[in-house]
Amino acid sequence: MTNVLFTFTVKEELMERLRSEFPQVNFTFSTSKDKTELQKAEIIMTYGEDITKETLDQALALKWLMVASAGLEKMPLREIGERNILITNVKGIHKTPMSESVMAHLLSIKRSLPWIYSQQRKSEWSKRSGSSELFGSTALILGPGAIGSEIGRLLQAFGVKTIGCNRSGDQAPHMDGMINFEQLDETLPTADIVISVLPSTLETRGLLTYNHFVLMKKDAIFMNFGRGDLIIEEQLIKAMSERQISFSVLDVFENEPLGEDHPFWDMDGVIISPHVSSHSSEYVPRAIEIFMENLQEWLNEGTDFQNVIDVEKGY
Amino acid sequence: MTNVLFTFTVKEELMERLRSEFPQVNFTFSTSKDKTELQKAEIIMTYGEDITKETLDQALALKWLMVASAGLEKMPLREIGERNILITNVKGIHKTPMSESVMAHLLSIKRSLPWIYSQQRKSEWSKRSGSSELFGSTALILGPGAIGSEIGRLLQAFGVKTIGCNRSGDQAPHMDGMINFEQLDETLPTADIVISVLPSTLETRGLLTYNHFVLMKKDAIFMNFGRGDLIIEEQLIKAMSERQISFSVLDVFENEPLGEDHPFWDMDGVIISPHVSSHSSEYVPRAIEIFMENLQEWLNEGTDFQNVIDVEKGY
Repeated sequence: MTNVLFTFTVKEELMERLRSEFPQVNFTFSTSKDKTELQKAEIIMTYGEDITKETLDQALALKWLMVASAGLEKMPLREIGERNILITNVKGIHKTPMSESVMAHLLSIKRSLPWIYSQQRKSEWSKRSGSSELFGSTALILGPGAIGSEIGRLLQAFGVKTIGCNRSGDQAPHMDGMINFEQLDETLPTADIVISVLPSTLETRGLLTYNHFVLMKKDAIFMNFGRGDLIIEEQLIKAMSERQISFSVLDVFENEPLGEDHPFWDMDGVIISPHVSSHSSEYVPRAIEIFMENLQEWLNEGTDFQNVIDVEKGY
Repeated sequence: MTNVLFTFTVKEELMERLRSEFPQVNFTFSTSKDKTELQKAEIIMTYGEDITKETLDQALALKWLMVASAGLEKMPLREIGERNILITNVKGIHKTPMSESVMAHLLSIKRSLPWIYSQQRKSEWSKRSGSSELFGSTALILGPGAIGSEIGRLLQAFGVKTIGCNRSGDQAPHMDGMINFEQLDETLPTADIVISVLPSTLETRGLLTYNHFVLMKKDAIFMNFGRGDLIIEEQLIKAMSERQISFSVLDVFENEPLGEDHPFWDMDGVIISPHVSSHSSEYVPRAIEIFMENLQEWLNEGTDFQNVIDVEKGY
């Protein structure tokens, strides 16, 4: 019998689904500290953070590590490679919730939802909404990969012109135009919306500076849904306190959690999404869906797995 | 020279645009009480409410009435018809802002924006967003006309299954399925979202009752963006106080403005949009765009006008 250890727990209905679809598999829901189960497990399903060199040393039967997360930065990839353990993840799982969050924030601003909610708290009927539209805007998307392209697809449905920006300037899906990082200065003045979903790399750290915000339109909306180190926070604070642009919607920060005395909390035009843009009630069901397809392939002794990680490259 | 009277004022830049594009036309921006201009005007651009039988009697030169609104219920259509005055409106102008408002509210609920805003007011970092997704939902759209179909198109882009509901059950654009009014009871239990953009007619007044809300899912979202008389308000209050469904987003009411002691203001799950879902900074520019195209046709002595109203039918 194949032993599978989940190092986290899931809802009863998902456990039942796994057990009924795979009667030949023994599923245990525990933690990576459960030495007995760790030793027996041929397959481990984990969020990743609990898998250290020490965990690996104890997981003597381990042949496949399924990581229910997109980031693998802290995992002992060298050891996994040396032992020839198959490693797969749930790449792409953030696409739907993150692009819905981006659209939610943009539409909320354009259609005056913060104002509507605040009027209701005061039981005050007023029609001075000052609403505008997303339709007809131009959006610059920094990092038009899986998530960025999905945002582009949705923006285009709303009649928004999309311009993608990456290192090469090579065409990406759902982009009406493309630029490379060197063309940022000339393009920023034309954008109504600037969205970053860039990862943290040598090239993206500090990519945006105060001067970029000066170049943007006064009524521009900036959204950082990638990594907090895209910009030195002090420079963004300066830009927002001078109202160089109208809105900054931030899901990521230099340091998380944001301290309760951080200036962002009270700043006009700053909206703080506490790194929840990828959260979704559908996350675990979707991760298990990917896992089950891979598990079927595993039991069939096939090799066509989804999202196999190259331990040399790290993705 | 052709005399055009606007019975409302517009921004300087729009006035300049009209005058530079139509140098052969004399534009006056005043009110319908300006008897001198009223007598001279061959064309009147109006929001409609100021045009009475008396206004018409004074507008001796009037040949074309352009109404910058969608509703014509209160206009003296019989007199307009008798004098063979051309009447046009801005049908379809609400499509973009209204569908964006509907999407904004839905995405805001699914992606926890009210919670995000409230956490920020308390300078409180928490990641317990409880967010879900629009993707994979089923939406029932009561009244899949120009606005309802546009909502359907956007919902489909988000992976939502759309079911249209009208009197006939005949196919409408961007609907995955169609039902007629008689099939409501059997369809309501399958919908995650129920949106009405129905007008007020003999058939739609009181169409929804308390029992329909009992039939809906406990986590359903109801949106009334049509007319307030779709449901007797007391019945909706009963349904919401019993939490028969999770959310009611209301843009229209039995009586507007809503009194400050109305129970809706403080009710869990009720979101009050004070009849602003069609508001947009683009409204007047878009109305003038339609007017200019018709004006060009008028000056060319053509007959191919946009949105001509049949005074017999009233639309």
